[in-house]
Amino acid sequence: MQSKLSKYSLVNGEFFPAASASLGITDLAIQRGYGIFDFFKSINGKFVFIEDHLDRFYFSAAQMHLPLKHSRQELKSLLQALMEKNELLDSGIRITLTGGYAEDGYTIAEPNMIITQQAFTNPTFSSQGLHLMTHPHQRQLAEVKTLDYLMAIRLQPLLKQHDADDVLYHDQGMLRECPRSNFFMVNHQHEVLTSATGILKGVVRKQLLNLKISGLTIVERDFNLNDLQQAQEAFVTSSTKNVMPVSSIDGRHIGNGQPGEVTRALAEAFNKLIA
Amino acid sequence: MQSKLSKYSLVNGEFFPAASASLGITDLAIQRGYGIFDFFKSINGKFVFIEDHLDRFYFSAAQMHLPLKHSRQELKSLLQALMEKNELLDSGIRITLTGGYAEDGYTIAEPNMIITQQAFTNPTFSSQGLHLMTHPHQRQLAEVKTLDYLMAIRLQPLLKQHDADDVLYHDQGMLRECPRSNFFMVNHQHEVLTSATGILKGVVRKQLLNLKISGLTIVERDFNLNDLQQAQEAFVTSSTKNVMPVSSIDGRHIGNGQPGEVTRALAEAFNKLIA
Repeated sequence: MQSKLSKYSLVNGEFFPAASASLGITDLAIQRGYGIFDFFKSINGKFVFIEDHLDRFYFSAAQMHLPLKHSRQELKSLLQALMEKNELLDSGIRITLTGGYAEDGYTIAEPNMIITQQAFTNPTFSSQGLHLMTHPHQRQLAEVKTLDYLMAIRLQPLLKQHDADDVLYHDQGMLRECPRSNFFMVNHQHEVLTSATGILKGVVRKQLLNLKISGLTIVERDFNLNDLQQAQEAFVTSSTKNVMPVSSIDGRHIGNGQPGEVTRALAEAFNKLIA
Repeated sequence: MQSKLSKYSLVNGEFFPAASASLGITDLAIQRGYGIFDFFKSINGKFVFIEDHLDRFYFSAAQMHLPLKHSRQELKSLLQALMEKNELLDSGIRITLTGGYAEDGYTIAEPNMIITQQAFTNPTFSSQGLHLMTHPHQRQLAEVKTLDYLMAIRLQPLLKQHDADDVLYHDQGMLRECPRSNFFMVNHQHEVLTSATGILKGVVRKQLLNLKISGLTIVERDFNLNDLQQAQEAFVTSSTKNVMPVSSIDGRHIGNGQPGEVTRALAEAFNKLIA
């Protein structure tokens, strides 16, 4: 049942075999879906963009009033210890913080913190693009990385019906994000656009926005479904996908359905960054 | 940590001491907040409005693509067995159904079902009304009783700051519901109004809508914050609160701040129903 997790997990700073790690049923995640998390990679034993991820993790915890008893340095030591215990250098690491054991089923208690690791190989660029399906939905508390994936998981059967790989949310026509990645489009003016509001601000997205590539302008600006009709290229970014081209949206090809030059250039620049 | 729960809980049909009942950390409730539940009372060993609650429980499960392996009759037998094991006749009972142990952290697996019981005494009518605070929020998948209480729990410190007992959601001014109860207002025309859309349709609410009381019209109809300014009376309904008066909203008294005649009449009629 937990075959993809690496041998050991940490629960509140203690090692447990991943297969037997558990939380009591009064935890607020189980009772009320209340918690936050973050997810990042290790490549060859090095945590990728760890400061950005911990910034966001502490931000999410603060936004949800979840007190963290570990300092940033202690948390890093735990991450390092887990990696050594699992002897796993290329991995995906997830830190989850829940509302804790709530006597009344409603009030935040001392949070439970779970850290898991699983084998993960940093992907190389794939010219096989994603097929996206748009869906109207605005994530609540969008800038906080909460546990809430109700809509995303509920939509999985619909995605299958439409042969789509992932969903692309819009809020009354304003483009937002995919459930686990940020969305970008390239317009006729060769601007690379990514939504400014109503989204989780991804770490790969942030890194792209900081890239200086001559001839390329990357802009945070909201855009809508009409703008999307004019997209020359589109791609998504995330820690698991890096920069991944989008080949179609709602069954309509983006460009000629093959990854475009801008997408390739950004993927290449990003891969250099994490090499 | 689980002091309010009764001695035994059921996890996937097996009894566990409530204090040691647990779920593995790969459960989708812990990873993605994915699950549903329902909650009802037993009074003197009799489950209150059990058919309504099971209707909604099976509806919620179906809406979230969570397959239930127990038939309705089997589920009732489990509820009965738990009550007998705990020797607890007056109680609150909660059935939770989660997304199960997801290998990939994202795909619905065989759901885990948790049934807990805790001592609960059916409340008598209180003339001490609630102080509510409005807040803009539309619950996603509103008619499904999901685990999602992110907003409600996050707002608890704000409620305390405002000396409010509970939050009353509105969606761009359209009144919706409290996180764990339905909201009603009585207008100048002596109509009793409860929102028609964007809400979880409560079982007590349903029972009230079915009441025939001469001189009283109870209507499902959306209304907004302006209409609320004209409220003569207001109250909330839920399985834990029955019919409970609202004395103020955003610091402004409803009527003279005391429970009105309509609220009292409905509370009385409802109490007869469950007596």
